[in-house]
Amino acid sequence: MEFKNLDQTKALAALQKDKKVSVREALTTQRIAKYQSPEAGGLLSYHYAAMPVDEQILGDLQRLSDEQELIAKYKALLGGEVMNTGEKRLVLHQLSRGQVLPTPVIADGEDKGKFYKGQLERIKEFSEQVRSGKLVGSTGKSFTTVCQIGIGGSDLGPRALYLALQGYAQGKGIKQLEGKFISNVDPDDAAQVIDTLDMERTLFILVSKSGTTLETLTNRDLVIDAIKESGIKGIDPAKHMVAVTSKTSPLAKSKDVRESFFFDDYIGGRYSSSCAVGGVVLSLAFGYDVFQELLDGAHQADVAALEPDIRKNASLLDALIGVYNRNVLGYPSTAILPYSQALSRFPAHLQQLDMESNGKHVNRDGKPVAYVTGPVIFGEPGTNGQHSFYQLLHQGTDIIPLQFVGFKQNQRGKDIVIQGSTSQQKLCANLAAQIVAFARGKDDENPNKQFAGNRVSSLLVAKELTPAVLGALLAHYENKVMFQGFLWNLNSFDQEGVQLGKTLAKQVLAGCPGDPVLKAFSDLL
Amino acid sequence: MEFKNLDQTKALAALQKDKKVSVREALTTQRIAKYQSPEAGGLLSYHYAAMPVDEQILGDLQRLSDEQELIAKYKALLGGEVMNTGEKRLVLHQLSRGQVLPTPVIADGEDKGKFYKGQLERIKEFSEQVRSGKLVGSTGKSFTTVCQIGIGGSDLGPRALYLALQGYAQGKGIKQLEGKFISNVDPDDAAQVIDTLDMERTLFILVSKSGTTLETLTNRDLVIDAIKESGIKGIDPAKHMVAVTSKTSPLAKSKDVRESFFFDDYIGGRYSSSCAVGGVVLSLAFGYDVFQELLDGAHQADVAALEPDIRKNASLLDALIGVYNRNVLGYPSTAILPYSQALSRFPAHLQQLDMESNGKHVNRDGKPVAYVTGPVIFGEPGTNGQHSFYQLLHQGTDIIPLQFVGFKQNQRGKDIVIQGSTSQQKLCANLAAQIVAFARGKDDENPNKQFAGNRVSSLLVAKELTPAVLGALLAHYENKVMFQGFLWNLNSFDQEGVQLGKTLAKQVLAGCPGDPVLKAFSDLL
Repeated sequence: MEFKNLDQTKALAALQKDKKVSVREALTTQRIAKYQSPEAGGLLSYHYAAMPVDEQILGDLQRLSDEQELIAKYKALLGGEVMNTGEKRLVLHQLSRGQVLPTPVIADGEDKGKFYKGQLERIKEFSEQVRSGKLVGSTGKSFTTVCQIGIGGSDLGPRALYLALQGYAQGKGIKQLEGKFISNVDPDDAAQVIDTLDMERTLFILVSKSGTTLETLTNRDLVIDAIKESGIKGIDPAKHMVAVTSKTSPLAKSKDVRESFFFDDYIGGRYSSSCAVGGVVLSLAFGYDVFQELLDGAHQADVAALEPDIRKNASLLDALIGVYNRNVLGYPSTAILPYSQALSRFPAHLQQLDMESNGKHVNRDGKPVAYVTGPVIFGEPGTNGQHSFYQLLHQGTDIIPLQFVGFKQNQRGKDIVIQGSTSQQKLCANLAAQIVAFARGKDDENPNKQFAGNRVSSLLVAKELTPAVLGALLAHYENKVMFQGFLWNLNSFDQEGVQLGKTLAKQVLAGCPGDPVLKAFSDLL
Repeated sequence: MEFKNLDQTKALAALQKDKKVSVREALTTQRIAKYQSPEAGGLLSYHYAAMPVDEQILGDLQRLSDEQELIAKYKALLGGEVMNTGEKRLVLHQLSRGQVLPTPVIADGEDKGKFYKGQLERIKEFSEQVRSGKLVGSTGKSFTTVCQIGIGGSDLGPRALYLALQGYAQGKGIKQLEGKFISNVDPDDAAQVIDTLDMERTLFILVSKSGTTLETLTNRDLVIDAIKESGIKGIDPAKHMVAVTSKTSPLAKSKDVRESFFFDDYIGGRYSSSCAVGGVVLSLAFGYDVFQELLDGAHQADVAALEPDIRKNASLLDALIGVYNRNVLGYPSTAILPYSQALSRFPAHLQQLDMESNGKHVNRDGKPVAYVTGPVIFGEPGTNGQHSFYQLLHQGTDIIPLQFVGFKQNQRGKDIVIQGSTSQQKLCANLAAQIVAFARGKDDENPNKQFAGNRVSSLLVAKELTPAVLGALLAHYENKVMFQGFLWNLNSFDQEGVQLGKTLAKQVLAGCPGDPVLKAFSDLL
């Protein structure tokens, strides 16, 4: 297995010479029928007819995939090779949702698959006890609310998934514990959430792998302070708190929590939604079965990602087309546009997943790369975005590749017919219309009403946003980001770029010794 | 007054030849002290020491400002010239918060300043009646919740401002009516909000200038349906609904609303937060006085924007530096990073404001421009973003100019000391640290821990996020976007780019007659 930079591949050179595709000209019904592939065994389907590729370019993308040995690298990762080269760690988030390859991964003297599974069993049991009312708060009352305290990967993914499943649970009549989230060190964040809580009935979930995250420990202390100040007789904060952390962290054996659930250094924060980091809060809120369905959907996507034929592997093809857009066509950003209010915070999670993984300027060996890597990722749900930033997407001077996500049905099943169509039909009609409007544009005598077209997009579709579909969607993007990291020859699993700011923040709090410039900025605030 | 394209200016040519500034090298305490200017009479201060400018470049930016006659164009706009050339409309959002120039603007046979003021007086009276419990719902109960139904400019700005003021109102002990918002045509959006409402105590605010916005009318009907289905005896939907619309819209005299408040074609949706569109919901939620303070702050920024010396005019200078970053240095996007949880949705509002205003490829006369215009805008609050996409900002291959926003104090006044500092101090320390980390970078033998620096940023600071400061912040960005539109010679006040998608969506709902490609996409969903 060879690790080489993208610009050392023959396929990239070929792609650069390939005739460019005008989506405006190319779009036909035949193309729409042909340019689609299933994801996660059919839970989703990926449509790329409105992406600027043709048979020639797809052939070269296949050669690029083969030349960069993307499937072999994925298998190496699954098999337990040290793919996080900077931190010298394994990368096992796929294993946290199931064994993709048959051979167990042994590390630190244990079977890692069994370790993650064991934690799931503990989560199942614990969440069932809480949800059934067997396990209660310190004043004898059952829990009705769970509140996660975490930041970054311990917040964005779990929060996005929680919001995505509320409507599903309601539609299916599943009992819900209300979920709340505290993340920011801004004390107004905690204060606002705390204000809405009945402390006797709230279970806090403290999430920090290291057990030392400044924001999270600070917010824990704010919460404990608020519990104590509530004046509720006999309330004991430790009975209202569990931890999700690593076995070696100071939180692991803390007396201040009633239970600890574990993950490890082989699951990066932004990849941790499908281990205990997302599992505890989602299982408490919706029941363990819902979380297990999510894991099964993600696992199906992980299995599907083993396919070497790029036309049958949606995450692989999505990754390749993304790199083509970025490195051959030079597009600097990508918009994620889910036509589903349930996915309102999913773009924010993908923003972290993608930009923190592949926003790198050195390759996996620490050598600077001579090409652009991860794009800026942003997005909001449709149709809201249509009334906001779509103007620039349609008529701005830059082309922004778009990724649409859509569902045939809504989650809650409540809808009405107005002017001959349901709201869900209007939502889907808008999504289909946008793809065509972006791709095909429109000529007009008035240049102000002229649309150049050739605004490229892809589409991920499912019948309904179920837990399995959500898991498949999550894993689709994780695997896409992984394949792009392999293409760019990056280590997508560390985040050294966040360290300098942390170090300097400590120096500010220490009074900026010997650093007048830092002091001058600090004095402004 | 001459309207010419940016690339016809002498100053742009000079700027392109100017020696580029390395912020990494240039940053000194003297520079930090010098490169700052007040905004809105000192409500805010703007700091640009970490932006890539020097005396030479600032001189050329001043010449660019003079050459493009930015202040004269602003005055023309204030005076009632038809600056929305495409739609042949005046642009009067500044007037909605106060008379900046002494001469009244007369249009459609009325004094427009008086018209807006008259609406404010109606809002004041109505909101006081609701808040005092004089005006009640159809079953005799006072209102405790207001729910805005609107999309785009009728949603993002008002929602962002509502969230920004909750903590302020709480800190000051101001009585609050709870605010809710329904926007998306996805029926799950309305269903989720409706589920949380006590219909007897909820007043809905229907916001659509044309009175024909598909999403908004659909959601209104979903709400009316839910009220009727609530089974509450004697409840009358019309007594639970007011409209904010134009005088000529079908909603204006509808029997289905108990009151209508007006704005007009001279205030674009994304500029409408400071007229009735934001005014009704904010006055109901927090009291009219809070909204008036916001207007006063915005008005002060509008007055400050008249200053021709760019070093004394923060919105003007911010606009000029932004165009320098975009057109001379070639940076394609800008991140907005407020270190305040209260501003969690402010970047989403600015995303609309900026991208819908200046995401254009033709100039104000409808001629294609040969340079890039509006950048992609994105952002999340700090410190959350630090644990998410900052990796790419620090170590990615593209430079993304950053706009930080910070406050010395938090809103609610609840905070605790942990490890020697309050949460607010930690928040501010992180902000100061990030500016320096981005600008100065850090050398390291390990290339993976190497930070190149020269990641440029500016900072807007205030003592606390009060209504006046929020108004000044809002107007700062509106005026920045306006000045950039003048620099690029665009019409920043129309949005023709959103029309094509609307038209095609109607065709999808009609079965895609004669359009097999549209039908093929429609069939996927």
